Amino acid sequence: MHSPEYFQELIENHIRNSDFSGHPAELYDPIHYMMSLGGKRLRPVLLLMSHELFGGKAENILSPALGIEIFHNFTLLHDDIMDKAPLRRSQQTVHKKWNDDIAILSGDTMFVQSCMHLMKVNASYLQRVLSLFLKTAAEVCEGQQLDMNFEKSNHVSIDEYIHMIELKTAVLLGCTLSIGAICSDADEADINKIYDFGKNLGIAFQLHDDLLDVYGDSGKFGKQIGGDILANKKTFLLLTALENSKGKKLETLKQLLVANSSAPQEKISSVMQIYDELNVREQCETAMEGFYKKALESLENISVPGNKKEGLRLLAAKLMVREK
Amino acid sequence: MHSPEYFQELIENHIRNSDFSGHPAELYDPIHYMMSLGGKRLRPVLLLMSHELFGGKAENILSPALGIEIFHNFTLLHDDIMDKAPLRRSQQTVHKKWNDDIAILSGDTMFVQSCMHLMKVNASYLQRVLSLFLKTAAEVCEGQQLDMNFEKSNHVSIDEYIHMIELKTAVLLGCTLSIGAICSDADEADINKIYDFGKNLGIAFQLHDDLLDVYGDSGKFGKQIGGDILANKKTFLLLTALENSKGKKLETLKQLLVANSSAPQEKISSVMQIYDELNVREQCETAMEGFYKKALESLENISVPGNKKEGLRLLAAKLMVREK
Repeated sequence: MHSPEYFQELIENHIRNSDFSGHPAELYDPIHYMMSLGGKRLRPVLLLMSHELFGGKAENILSPALGIEIFHNFTLLHDDIMDKAPLRRSQQTVHKKWNDDIAILSGDTMFVQSCMHLMKVNASYLQRVLSLFLKTAAEVCEGQQLDMNFEKSNHVSIDEYIHMIELKTAVLLGCTLSIGAICSDADEADINKIYDFGKNLGIAFQLHDDLLDVYGDSGKFGKQIGGDILANKKTFLLLTALENSKGKKLETLKQLLVANSSAPQEKISSVMQIYDELNVREQCETAMEGFYKKALESLENISVPGNKKEGLRLLAAKLMVREK
Repeated sequence: MHSPEYFQELIENHIRNSDFSGHPAELYDPIHYMMSLGGKRLRPVLLLMSHELFGGKAENILSPALGIEIFHNFTLLHDDIMDKAPLRRSQQTVHKKWNDDIAILSGDTMFVQSCMHLMKVNASYLQRVLSLFLKTAAEVCEGQQLDMNFEKSNHVSIDEYIHMIELKTAVLLGCTLSIGAICSDADEADINKIYDFGKNLGIAFQLHDDLLDVYGDSGKFGKQIGGDILANKKTFLLLTALENSKGKKLETLKQLLVANSSAPQEKISSVMQIYDELNVREQCETAMEGFYKKALESLENISVPGNKKEGLRLLAAKLMVREK
């Protein structure tokens, strides 16, 4: 069993050696740009690791793995337009560097390309792999729409939030792991278990992200702490605080949410103080650990010798300690 | 052989009976809305007619035909955002009725759905049908990008224009006809011929559209004549005029293009006068008839008894006399 770093290098090389050029350049340059921005390549790495876990050779499945990475970057590209985000991995977003029209259309083309690459699985898996991929793609769109709805909604429950991040983030991890397994002829029960491993890991991963925004080690990387708080983003932390507070505390919290942020540091401190009083951090950690534990249980239940799972165990653990 | 109207009713009923609802409503309502706006349903009708031409039963192939119509409507939806169009089939466009973000995301979801429906072909055709469909989808994106590029370009040749409309409009007609043929086990040569029939018909169809804008019968339908002229749209007519004029006439034409349209009727008359002096209308008609003739030749060369082709001949002729 190879290490996560081995697979990351494998897919990174494959991306570097792929030709994203085409005519007209206005359509294809943004695709090349987007695919060159780097990142952890988590989703294709998971696909390759799952494929090897069940006895396949990673080298045989690089195209579908690339397809998943292109799809992921397509969703980032379109999300960035909707979020009016200026930066992606410290570089200009496509809609800023070019314009919205080009970002829409090169995103559409990336989706087409992702399907083309996924089609390169062995013909006997084609129907199964594409059905799962398309079902997942629709769910990711649903998750993004729910996320946008939540911005305008005054009442979002914790359950609704978990459902949203499941769709927006987690199902794609389950999907990519399952594709790796399907193409190794894994049995039905194991395909479901590796899917659940990915889905629960994805939810834990997103909750970890919520925690890092407030409790991450900012000094080291210079990223501002409390960005979600300033943006009134309905994270697990804020929703837990809203659900657990009442009376005067609830009023204070609601006032902080409508106040304009002329004093951002004060707003962050005040919200964090309420979080502390309500033990919000601990509740988020408990939820995160619950999903992480569920993920590991699914992994352990897979009918493959335990030592072969070490790479995926390592990768999962790494995701839970990553810093922004 | 059934009439075009028979197939149109068949697909219209299938669309009416399809369930486009889903959660969240903000994502799925625009899809239902878009699919309910009506239209000729030309692309799925062509698929069904081609399928029947080669001996298949239209009822067996309604899902992929629906997939093509969803794809076509997805391109209209995203194009409308880029063109900032307020109306589509006399109704509000999705980005106007909802907003840009919802239009982007429900468009993405329509593309996912179109692939799902195309996957419902018989498994033995899946690889072939999807490859052709995805190749065509990429070409349609390229065509739309070229169209946007032309708006900002000072020099577009007639050949470049024909290439653009081939990608943006014509290849999808070839694709949908070929899918119908593939799923009827038509032989390779016939699949290529029906593709060429569609592609050339599509180019003729777009040139006819260019002509109708200037020489169409506006009185009957109240549509304004000369919309393309006022928008300085680089149609076959304008590009031919630019290519064929020189000296003072070229100067006059260029001045008309940069002039603001405080006197729209005068601008239209002046441009039309230049068109008349240069026989631009005749040149466009000659080109259109050339592509139409090529289309019909491909149809006649298909190895199926001539009387079975009557429906497609009728439909093609109808497209050439349609009024806006």
